Amino acid sequence: MFFRKDVMNKKIYIVGMGPGSEEAMTREALKALEESDIIIGYTVYLDLLKAGFGHKEMKSTPMKQEVERCRMCFDEAEQGKTVSMVSSGDAGIYGMASIMYEISLEYDSDIELQVIPGITAASSGAAILGAPLNHDFCIISLSDLLTPWEKIEKRLKSAAEGDFAIAIYNPSSKKRADYLMKACDILLETMEEDRPCGYVKNIGREGTEYRICTLAELRDAQVDMFTTCFIGNSQTKIIDNKLVTPRGYGL
Amino acid sequence: MFFRKDVMNKKIYIVGMGPGSEEAMTREALKALEESDIIIGYTVYLDLLKAGFGHKEMKSTPMKQEVERCRMCFDEAEQGKTVSMVSSGDAGIYGMASIMYEISLEYDSDIELQVIPGITAASSGAAILGAPLNHDFCIISLSDLLTPWEKIEKRLKSAAEGDFAIAIYNPSSKKRADYLMKACDILLETMEEDRPCGYVKNIGREGTEYRICTLAELRDAQVDMFTTCFIGNSQTKIIDNKLVTPRGYGL
Repeated sequence: MFFRKDVMNKKIYIVGMGPGSEEAMTREALKALEESDIIIGYTVYLDLLKAGFGHKEMKSTPMKQEVERCRMCFDEAEQGKTVSMVSSGDAGIYGMASIMYEISLEYDSDIELQVIPGITAASSGAAILGAPLNHDFCIISLSDLLTPWEKIEKRLKSAAEGDFAIAIYNPSSKKRADYLMKACDILLETMEEDRPCGYVKNIGREGTEYRICTLAELRDAQVDMFTTCFIGNSQTKIIDNKLVTPRGYGL
Repeated sequence: MFFRKDVMNKKIYIVGMGPGSEEAMTREALKALEESDIIIGYTVYLDLLKAGFGHKEMKSTPMKQEVERCRMCFDEAEQGKTVSMVSSGDAGIYGMASIMYEISLEYDSDIELQVIPGITAASSGAAILGAPLNHDFCIISLSDLLTPWEKIEKRLKSAAEGDFAIAIYNPSSKKRADYLMKACDILLETMEEDRPCGYVKNIGREGTEYRICTLAELRDAQVDMFTTCFIGNSQTKIIDNKLVTPRGYGL
């Protein structure tokens, strides 16, 4: 019995769900969930999985208790269960992957972690808008919950200086209603007002909508925490109401 | 007959295949291929699809004839076929999406384009290395085939200045054997020599291998055009031979 426990494969998958529906998940991600004894994640994401994986044990912790949720994964794995920790988008892009590795140091070293990548909002949002990220680009989150605002400001300036296309995550929340405006004002210091931009709400879920606009218009756009914003580079153009950043074939 | 042709839905899917295997494709991407009458792409990618989609008509053009390959898609769509144009990774990230929109201007406006996102090498490579892109990051291609080297250099400098984590695509080719060295030298002007880095070869295909190293070691690494490189930000650490960029929970 003790021997069996020793050799038992203790495994945690850290799974990126993509924008939400099972349609946008990879086969590999679906397999990991199917192979798991328990699925752990934020309740909103677990709800999205109930249609296909309702037969699985599911566990959650309240919002903002991410660290406790991670420890829950290790606690379950230590009991011999195969665990999937789910994040929306890609678990390795503003998701739980890094925290899981940090917390792994508190636990037995025989628990294996495997990250299964998913479609992040930069990819899924870009696909809806056309091809805004078809050359070098940056992703910047405007959430200053875990990052000082000065650092975010510096990154916006550097991104503009490097003429990167930019995807902006977490552009707004109730407490940070004016953050997108502040970010656009920083970009407008060096970018022209009519720089082609766009934003997408509720990517891959009910009520998906997008808009193509200028940087000046993006500054005043009504966005929420389910919106991803895109700012073109100096070569980005609008073709048939889509945002297109050329790769450079000189067409 | 003419009427039927007029109302016929002329559709081109621009499909991101992810790193290579069907396992890493989304259900949505697999559905688009299944729905298509013809699949067009670079021969290497078509070969990867032959196991699952060998019953489909497939067409290609030689390497470097990307623009002709795009026109081929529109020519087939004009004849009423549903077409899938496949790219590895994400079609909207250094893929064919933007060129397809640019070329669409030469054709009938009733051909509908839809981009289906895929897992780009930044996501799939990061998953193998741990969680190197778990905070704001940039993707920069070192290929100067379509981009002046001065612009690439400027972007590397801006990315370092903004303390972004960085994913580097196309770090080398036969003609550009020393480009990764040149890029690392630029980063080393402001980053410390022992900045945690890593690289992955043949992501998601046979012979996948990865290495965690310092920036000074990355400078001298033997990489090829199937390698993706990752450079940590100032907070990135190595945990159990994985590259981890904290999201900032202060663990």
